[in-house]
Amino acid sequence: MRYEEFTIEGRNAVMEAFRSGKTIDRLFIQDGCHDGPVNSIIREAKKADTIINYVSKERLDKMSETGKHQGVIAYAAAYEYATVEQILALAREKNEEPFIFILDNIEDPHNLGAIIRTANLAGAHGVIIPKRRASGLTATVAKTSAGALNYTPVAKVTNIGAAIEELKKEGMWFVCAHMDGEIMYNLNLTGPIGLVIGNEGGGVSRLVKEKCDFIASIPMKGDIDSLNASVAAGVLAYEVVRQKMSLKCNN
Amino acid sequence: MRYEEFTIEGRNAVMEAFRSGKTIDRLFIQDGCHDGPVNSIIREAKKADTIINYVSKERLDKMSETGKHQGVIAYAAAYEYATVEQILALAREKNEEPFIFILDNIEDPHNLGAIIRTANLAGAHGVIIPKRRASGLTATVAKTSAGALNYTPVAKVTNIGAAIEELKKEGMWFVCAHMDGEIMYNLNLTGPIGLVIGNEGGGVSRLVKEKCDFIASIPMKGDIDSLNASVAAGVLAYEVVRQKMSLKCNN
Repeated sequence: MRYEEFTIEGRNAVMEAFRSGKTIDRLFIQDGCHDGPVNSIIREAKKADTIINYVSKERLDKMSETGKHQGVIAYAAAYEYATVEQILALAREKNEEPFIFILDNIEDPHNLGAIIRTANLAGAHGVIIPKRRASGLTATVAKTSAGALNYTPVAKVTNIGAAIEELKKEGMWFVCAHMDGEIMYNLNLTGPIGLVIGNEGGGVSRLVKEKCDFIASIPMKGDIDSLNASVAAGVLAYEVVRQKMSLKCNN
Repeated sequence: MRYEEFTIEGRNAVMEAFRSGKTIDRLFIQDGCHDGPVNSIIREAKKADTIINYVSKERLDKMSETGKHQGVIAYAAAYEYATVEQILALAREKNEEPFIFILDNIEDPHNLGAIIRTANLAGAHGVIIPKRRASGLTATVAKTSAGALNYTPVAKVTNIGAAIEELKKEGMWFVCAHMDGEIMYNLNLTGPIGLVIGNEGGGVSRLVKEKCDFIASIPMKGDIDSLNASVAAGVLAYEVVRQKMSLKCNN
């Protein structure tokens, strides 16, 4: 396994982590701390495009494992992130049309892990997640991915909408799951495709939904509102797989 | 919500629970306790077909919330179980061919909850789970089912294989998911169907697999072994939904 989870506490340790090029998922700075060393850390964080959260001393005390955070705690990525370009390169390498999962704020690490596992088995070339709010690649994600994180690259982007626009320039088109959409069996889901999966509670955000070329709905025959996010991702991904396979058989 | 979770501790409280007809999912008795009151509880448990676990005092001490277990702790069902007959009656009531999920030892309550949620939305009439080993209807299951437990009946049976045999007499046939099987898109999954989903680690057990009429495989294009159990259940269930829908359109 190539992953591990880190909480890094204290000014020197966090500064050292940035300098050594470690990917820091999230940086917590105590409110009102603006002395030299803290400002240097903030500069490094901005260079690395790390999200900074300013929080109270009480919150840091609670988060601290050592009790010696000195106003600074960093969460290092449990896993190395890939770039979107690396995901596209993987598709080219396999001589396949790109098939990418785009996760619009999946928050539960169990769902994220299960979705990365699905992405691997459905033959997707990678997964794109947003920097803010969503779950990052924690140890729980690695575990629930059942090893898929070793094979399926995950890229983290600042803005999901902008990433979709960039990928459209590469000839990809995008479908999101939403109950307002056309029944997925009636859509053509072949070609270079990005599958957009929304947040557990709120679904796909409006701005991201507007960027999608198609809106696919999973038929719902029951009494409740929606499938679990990782189940919905699996059902939609395998409709893509089915259509790709039937295309191959008919050609 | 119609569910709640109970740990019942102490001889009188547990005896009272049995006498009032509450469904006890699991009974824990201290090793070597064989006095009158404990023997009466064991008799009631056997009448109710409750699983009894004999455990050490240390284990009971750890499980105890009150510190006063007197050698007896019971886990009451967080939810009322249905019978297989009630599930079949629901299908008749809706004038539909029975569509039932059979879970061969799903252990993770999050998976069980997500599968019940999927069963509801895929239009299944109920879910059958085994008495031993598997997860019961705990509060976690109720929560992850997102309300589906209020609509989709769950029956608990002593023996999954025997339940399948009984349902075959009702004209149902059974398909299980296994990587050795025929690609699911090539199977006819319509008609009165039971969908058998295996355990997270070991898949469908040999004895249960032998009772299935068909073995369906989900195409795996990746590097790892298998999908998450609730995702696999969702993918297979929606292949059933797709085939049922396309049958309707073609008639």
